[in-house]
Amino acid sequence: MTATILDGRALATTLRGELDEGVAAFKDKYGITPTIAVVRAGEDPASVSYAKMIQKTFDKRGMGFQLHTLPETASQDEIVALVARLNADESVHGIMVQEPLPKGIDEAVVKDALSPDKDVDGVHPVNAGRLAQVSPVGRPPMVGPFFVPATPAGGMEILKRYNVEIQGKHAVVVGRSNIVGKPMALLLLRENATVTVCHSRTEDLAGVCRTADILCAAVGRAKMIKGDWIKPGAVVIDFGVNFVEGQMCGDVDFDEAVEVAGMITPVPGGTGPMTNLMLALNVLEAARRQVG
Amino acid sequence: MTATILDGRALATTLRGELDEGVAAFKDKYGITPTIAVVRAGEDPASVSYAKMIQKTFDKRGMGFQLHTLPETASQDEIVALVARLNADESVHGIMVQEPLPKGIDEAVVKDALSPDKDVDGVHPVNAGRLAQVSPVGRPPMVGPFFVPATPAGGMEILKRYNVEIQGKHAVVVGRSNIVGKPMALLLLRENATVTVCHSRTEDLAGVCRTADILCAAVGRAKMIKGDWIKPGAVVIDFGVNFVEGQMCGDVDFDEAVEVAGMITPVPGGTGPMTNLMLALNVLEAARRQVG
Repeated sequence: MTATILDGRALATTLRGELDEGVAAFKDKYGITPTIAVVRAGEDPASVSYAKMIQKTFDKRGMGFQLHTLPETASQDEIVALVARLNADESVHGIMVQEPLPKGIDEAVVKDALSPDKDVDGVHPVNAGRLAQVSPVGRPPMVGPFFVPATPAGGMEILKRYNVEIQGKHAVVVGRSNIVGKPMALLLLRENATVTVCHSRTEDLAGVCRTADILCAAVGRAKMIKGDWIKPGAVVIDFGVNFVEGQMCGDVDFDEAVEVAGMITPVPGGTGPMTNLMLALNVLEAARRQVG
Repeated sequence: MTATILDGRALATTLRGELDEGVAAFKDKYGITPTIAVVRAGEDPASVSYAKMIQKTFDKRGMGFQLHTLPETASQDEIVALVARLNADESVHGIMVQEPLPKGIDEAVVKDALSPDKDVDGVHPVNAGRLAQVSPVGRPPMVGPFFVPATPAGGMEILKRYNVEIQGKHAVVVGRSNIVGKPMALLLLRENATVTVCHSRTEDLAGVCRTADILCAAVGRAKMIKGDWIKPGAVVIDFGVNFVEGQMCGDVDFDEAVEVAGMITPVPGGTGPMTNLMLALNVLEAARRQVG
């Protein structure tokens, strides 16, 4: 049996339509363009290329994009001062500070400096904390509004749009980064999955993965998860973005996994195309909250 | 085989000695008494009795205790104003707002009103967020200072003081409250356990529990976890506080579990005696940070 492909590109097309409608309606009503400000210190090539991708998405969607660059030599105070200025700037609805920051900069201080209301990347502790504290679906949230990092938000959107049953299922998340693994685990828990978080220190990782009804990979190691780590029929969400001999591949050995899984995201074309759209949706939502 | 009893009472005696030394040294150095302010609106009997226990602990340890009560009819603005006053009061180092709050009060608004620096109960989103974001042990934390809720902090202290190996082990947490289950899961993850969170919607709960090297129960259902849910030799941490025919008991069926587990906390006398001490340690730590 070959798995159903969870087609992130097709889904992104659908979401683009929904986003465009939302942006158009917002602009009509308020005469304001939902706008992101990207902050970068230095010229890390991956950050430069990511910012260009964001700009392309925002340009095409009729949304505002600002790039604020500081030199690699920027001090912490300069970065914090820029963030504070953008916090106070009413024409900016969302702020993303790109990582890595230059050596010697305390990332915690920079994140804390963000206004949680403009932290569309979901990295401020208040946003992480509200995600950690939010009640399960179907109950009052019991926390204020928050933003979820775009990558795991995109993974959840794929599960939902493909009507994957989450409640009561065993979800295993491999990787515990603050921008993918941990928020993904908390999002799955909110949807009433039984959630296991694995990482580099996990004993018998293959065995734990084999117990997953929903297996999420976010480790950053090319094709680490093999076909025989997957329970037959499981749903596999691959957040990995790795390059092997110039070819992009995920954390899951796709060729093996596709023969075992019930559903699987390909890389490229799975979770990737969703990420920028989720970020853009967060910026639209931030703009709505700020005018509301 | 009968399990080793994880003796919370004996451990609390040790910790009391360490706390007393810390408090005495702090008072000597600064001439300041580390002080908690407990806020209560209404007279919920469990809250009244809990506040009395806290007062007793703080009195005995030579620490300051203030009780600020408002009537059941207090408005949200009144509660928030009281919290704001205590935030600004230099003689108060820690604040705990007791739950439940009166009907119609938005708990999220009251929690958000707390200064994270005085939130010794670890309920403010910033504290929950930093716990969610903190790096695993042995790496730079990458977040600012934070407070952990006292109950799970006490459970972790028991594991550490009894030299339970956590790294790489499979820890299963049954229950996902914001004051016990979820923070306990994040604390175990920080110590490099592979962590599974279970709850009322978990399928085959008994089977999942049986995979645990460390099983933590925080559901609030008397003796729900049976002996045959426990892997032989597992370490069992029971956070349950239930009453059956006037007798206090945990979430674990102790008489059955003690024959299977390798180590187990009794109820009473396990995690319970640790809780107030951990709260007091948080208040001492808050006072240290505030003078520092």
